[in-house]
Amino acid sequence: MERDLETIEDLGEFEFIRSISQGCIHGPEGILQGIGDDCAVIGPFGDKVLLVTTDLLVENVHFILDRTPARHLGEKAVAVNLSDIAAMGGVPRHLFVSLAIPHSFPLRILNALYEGMKEVCRAYGVNLLGGDTSASLAGLFINVAVIGEAMTDQVLYRKGASPGDSIYVTGPLGEAAAGLKILKGQIEAGLADWPSLIKALTRPRPQVEEGRIIAKSGLASAMIDLSDGLVADLGHICEASNSGAEILEECLPLSNTLISFAKKYNQDPIGLCLWGGEDYQLLITVPAANGPAFERMFKEKGCGPVYKIGKITEGRRIRCVRPDGTERVLHGVGFDHFKEAGQ
Amino acid sequence: MERDLETIEDLGEFEFIRSISQGCIHGPEGILQGIGDDCAVIGPFGDKVLLVTTDLLVENVHFILDRTPARHLGEKAVAVNLSDIAAMGGVPRHLFVSLAIPHSFPLRILNALYEGMKEVCRAYGVNLLGGDTSASLAGLFINVAVIGEAMTDQVLYRKGASPGDSIYVTGPLGEAAAGLKILKGQIEAGLADWPSLIKALTRPRPQVEEGRIIAKSGLASAMIDLSDGLVADLGHICEASNSGAEILEECLPLSNTLISFAKKYNQDPIGLCLWGGEDYQLLITVPAANGPAFERMFKEKGCGPVYKIGKITEGRRIRCVRPDGTERVLHGVGFDHFKEAGQ
Repeated sequence: MERDLETIEDLGEFEFIRSISQGCIHGPEGILQGIGDDCAVIGPFGDKVLLVTTDLLVENVHFILDRTPARHLGEKAVAVNLSDIAAMGGVPRHLFVSLAIPHSFPLRILNALYEGMKEVCRAYGVNLLGGDTSASLAGLFINVAVIGEAMTDQVLYRKGASPGDSIYVTGPLGEAAAGLKILKGQIEAGLADWPSLIKALTRPRPQVEEGRIIAKSGLASAMIDLSDGLVADLGHICEASNSGAEILEECLPLSNTLISFAKKYNQDPIGLCLWGGEDYQLLITVPAANGPAFERMFKEKGCGPVYKIGKITEGRRIRCVRPDGTERVLHGVGFDHFKEAGQ
Repeated sequence: MERDLETIEDLGEFEFIRSISQGCIHGPEGILQGIGDDCAVIGPFGDKVLLVTTDLLVENVHFILDRTPARHLGEKAVAVNLSDIAAMGGVPRHLFVSLAIPHSFPLRILNALYEGMKEVCRAYGVNLLGGDTSASLAGLFINVAVIGEAMTDQVLYRKGASPGDSIYVTGPLGEAAAGLKILKGQIEAGLADWPSLIKALTRPRPQVEEGRIIAKSGLASAMIDLSDGLVADLGHICEASNSGAEILEECLPLSNTLISFAKKYNQDPIGLCLWGGEDYQLLITVPAANGPAFERMFKEKGCGPVYKIGKITEGRRIRCVRPDGTERVLHGVGFDHFKEAGQ
């Protein structure tokens, strides 16, 4: 039966990606992972594999030029790609930038954008090796592609989680989502009032070092970076691993700033944490037996805190257990570019 | 002294690329070519290197949706990238597609676009391994990145040309430029009147097999694909090789169709050939001593004709010699997305 769907909006982003994922592989040798993880994995070349990821940032969809310094935008365009490399446990190596630029675009802003990109490249030892430049008739478009490397036996995929595995995240969640509400003017607050929330949104730090340490330890079973939102990204892990998950609400890492913000503006901090997106922390699943060693290693390596928020389960539902023991089923709806995010 | 340049339009595409090409390399090991050739070259990995290229196509800049079937647009988006891999002598292997899509974009067109991309992927054994999908507030943006492979000692760069080398191209030039004039309505002709000119523009065939044979032969010194226009792309070879060139006007390969078209609409076929762009033929430089062997090999391998159009010279100018022996200096101005093309 022909589907009765006419526009990309009707179908939605994730369903569209699923629909185009058929008939993509013609020479399967040399491919360890195609569509369906944070990076494609090709190789091996000797004892290494290459990781490839690409992210597109669109003006007035992903960023608003007069609310974000161009330098920070450049930093973020690179950082979000490095986060995808981090999510597989790899080392980012080479970067490619495609820009579509409106005709009368100020050079000053372009230069600041490149300064930001190059600053992050420098910090992580990443080489800017090419790209493409075009005119745009409406707005700035930034596509960044990154190639990384990893040892073949030290790559972490989404598909490795098993029921019983503990779920960890590397830092507090929901701050970027709160920052976005401020930036979009949905909250009566100035940008300067909540600098750490704005910073969480506009200057995320990719967890490259943490990702490498986790992958190298051999203690984890799966990993993903939190870009679409905790529930959506955990949903990706569950889908790839054919499992479900249980999140303990009281274990969700909320920063004091987020709690103050939520109180002041009558927001639901748990909702921001579950559905917000753009946290760019890592979510890791760890077989229960490895949990103590994993937590110890994380502390010893100076990676900062790591938060156990729940566990992988049988079945395909993601449930959130409230402190009183009642629970609700979360549906895995994160940010879909063509649909409204649920809550 | 601070330059008095304010917008990207003032500076121009090529000057902008030059301006951002500084401070790009932080870990030089494992990089054989960064910005400045058809592909970046990384490795070696064993006896192989990887080639990486990316091209951005913007609606109403590179294509007009209601004048080009979406399927052909998909084919071309892939083909122009394969052409860059061909220009280094490589084999295309993996493809990544980023799309920014207007909210109410018809699925029917998107599906046709992907069919076209997959068709070319299938024909060349290329795997579609990932990408990104975003909303766009204005128009369709297609960024394609391709990773190819080559034997380390069989890669051809732009920088290898030397004075005295013969210059060859693999096919007739200027047809795509003529097709563009028809498509844009600059000529009083219907799309159906000149199908081969329209096809040259909308369905270019990447010279992948030819590029491999040339690189493998060891007979050539440099290679590039003709995307920006003969003069502009030969200019890239000359710049990278620190040389000049002399083109013999009477040797430029003009198809009979182009000659008929030019006569009928009072166009300059030589101008279309020199400055037109989007031919996606290969331009190869060959040391004079290798010329006969090169031409023989091309014939024996069934690659079709190859046309000797001039030679590499000392100095930095590109000159065109007319049949009467007079000459003019060509300035290397091809298609700059932010400047008008000269003629």
